[in-house]
Amino acid sequence: MELLFLGTGAGVPAKVRNVTSLALKLLEERNAVWLFDCGEATQHQILSTSLKPRKIEKIFITHLHGDHIFGLPGLLGSRSFQGGTSLLTIYGPKGIKEFIEVSLKISETHLQYPLEIIEMEEGVIFDDGQFKVEALPLDHALPSWGFRIIESDKPGTLMAEKLEAEGVFPGPHYKELKAGKSVQLDDGRIIHGPDFLGPDQKGRIVAILGDTRPCENAVHLASEADVLVHEATFSGDSSEMAHRYFHSTTLQAAEIAKKADAFKLVLTHISSRYGKADWNTLRDEARTIFPDAEIANDFLEVPVPYRSTGGASLK
Amino acid sequence: MELLFLGTGAGVPAKVRNVTSLALKLLEERNAVWLFDCGEATQHQILSTSLKPRKIEKIFITHLHGDHIFGLPGLLGSRSFQGGTSLLTIYGPKGIKEFIEVSLKISETHLQYPLEIIEMEEGVIFDDGQFKVEALPLDHALPSWGFRIIESDKPGTLMAEKLEAEGVFPGPHYKELKAGKSVQLDDGRIIHGPDFLGPDQKGRIVAILGDTRPCENAVHLASEADVLVHEATFSGDSSEMAHRYFHSTTLQAAEIAKKADAFKLVLTHISSRYGKADWNTLRDEARTIFPDAEIANDFLEVPVPYRSTGGASLK
Ligand SMILES: [Zn+2]
Ligand SMILES: [Zn+2]
Repeated sequence: MELLFLGTGAGVPAKVRNVTSLALKLLEERNAVWLFDCGEATQHQILSTSLKPRKIEKIFITHLHGDHIFGLPGLLGSRSFQGGTSLLTIYGPKGIKEFIEVSLKISETHLQYPLEIIEMEEGVIFDDGQFKVEALPLDHALPSWGFRIIESDKPGTLMAEKLEAEGVFPGPHYKELKAGKSVQLDDGRIIHGPDFLGPDQKGRIVAILGDTRPCENAVHLASEADVLVHEATFSGDSSEMAHRYFHSTTLQAAEIAKKADAFKLVLTHISSRYGKADWNTLRDEARTIFPDAEIANDFLEVPVPYRSTGGASLK
Repeated sequence: MELLFLGTGAGVPAKVRNVTSLALKLLEERNAVWLFDCGEATQHQILSTSLKPRKIEKIFITHLHGDHIFGLPGLLGSRSFQGGTSLLTIYGPKGIKEFIEVSLKISETHLQYPLEIIEMEEGVIFDDGQFKVEALPLDHALPSWGFRIIESDKPGTLMAEKLEAEGVFPGPHYKELKAGKSVQLDDGRIIHGPDFLGPDQKGRIVAILGDTRPCENAVHLASEADVLVHEATFSGDSSEMAHRYFHSTTLQAAEIAKKADAFKLVLTHISSRYGKADWNTLRDEARTIFPDAEIANDFLEVPVPYRSTGGASLK
């Protein structure tokens, strides 16, 4: 599980930062990629990565501002052109369906895969046992949403060495023991799965938030998240401007991460008023409040490892 | 007057060729830029040029395929964000209005300039005395249009040396002579403007065609054009495939230029199946039929000079 930032700018594209898009790579977990927002030229950015459009399984749209959605029609068409045939599901605010359907109709784009568009409501919007996604509204100029992606806990792995020490070797018994059952060995002994299982592996949590002022729902979504992705359109001293434009400062994003007891914070949606020379300053502002803060650049990849809870080798 | 190719690929963006867009720079002529088609990331391409979005006065859309229009909503928004306040007029096929209006409405993009969208019909779609634009339908999978941009002829310039030889020096008389009138000099002599004017400067003609199979209207539009911009999605030996997909080959484009007695041909909309190594071959195919043929690349600039008709120095 890795985050790959495809666009980290605000409002309009610039040479150094494209408009917003973020890929959550779930290749090991489900051979799929989930996209969060799709500003114009997201498909162009993808050309500079190893991402395959046909592996994009879900697209989550935080809000309908152009810098977060204008890349959708082109990406949907290219996914088809490049051989995508599997279901694609798009979750977004009310209105996203009309935008996509009109764009595809007018351009006579005929997709070679089924497309499902879900205009979401607050709460759990997806849950397949492996991953659950919750959506809550934030505080922006138009309805903007944040997402909390929760991986299920995994049962611990079988302790093969301990079993071999008991004279139990790989075979049919292993599957049952792994499932936590008890089995009778050939010599009559009965052994119990839980005695040979490592600790449960707690699933990871990623919070990805749309444009917003600081708000309570941001804290809920980010609660104990392994990674929180939060916008930081403005520097710490511009809270008045941030408020006026329904955005957050670096310091406000860091406060959210701190209140939520998140593990790591990545700042994105950086205004083009800040040049290269300012980026470390922005990051350091956030670090005064929340030390494990980073600033995203286009193509930054952030791994989301399991936290070491005694089961560190389980990945 | 120069053509600046912003995207020269077909169907989907590739690293070396973006999807279609072409700027006709009319900076000297009217301090304006006209855009022809606006595929996704056209505004990104513009970031690598000296073009100013606020100087874009008109956008002509040849047809509604995504690779020709998906960059429109973003460019319209950015033109506003970057301070554009003057009228922008978009000419396009029926349907373009719905696409633009829905995109702007859904994204709550509020433009700071008046936007006029004209769903064109065959014939003269613009004429302000300086430039006239004619549109005719071509032969593509959906309605596709070609444009003929015609500059008005200019009266010749005053032959200052000849006047000075007659003892007439710069002053009020010059304006009247230039307008073709007769004037009486202080010494009583009457001289006639036409005797001191160079030959009329024939206006330039540029033909810019949307995706199409070879067709008669292409020849009409390109008739004696100074520059013809024609698609060449396929190589000369792929006429069957070109026909099936409603496109043209290099040889077919060259035939149109020849029949039209155009002055120069620029091939664009090159399929990504052809790599760098093939481009000269494609060009040379066209040259077997029409020698003054070029192949466009992204950011190629093609000047459109006045043809030398004895008034070469008039530019
Ligand atoms: Zn935004
Ligand atoms: Zn095309």
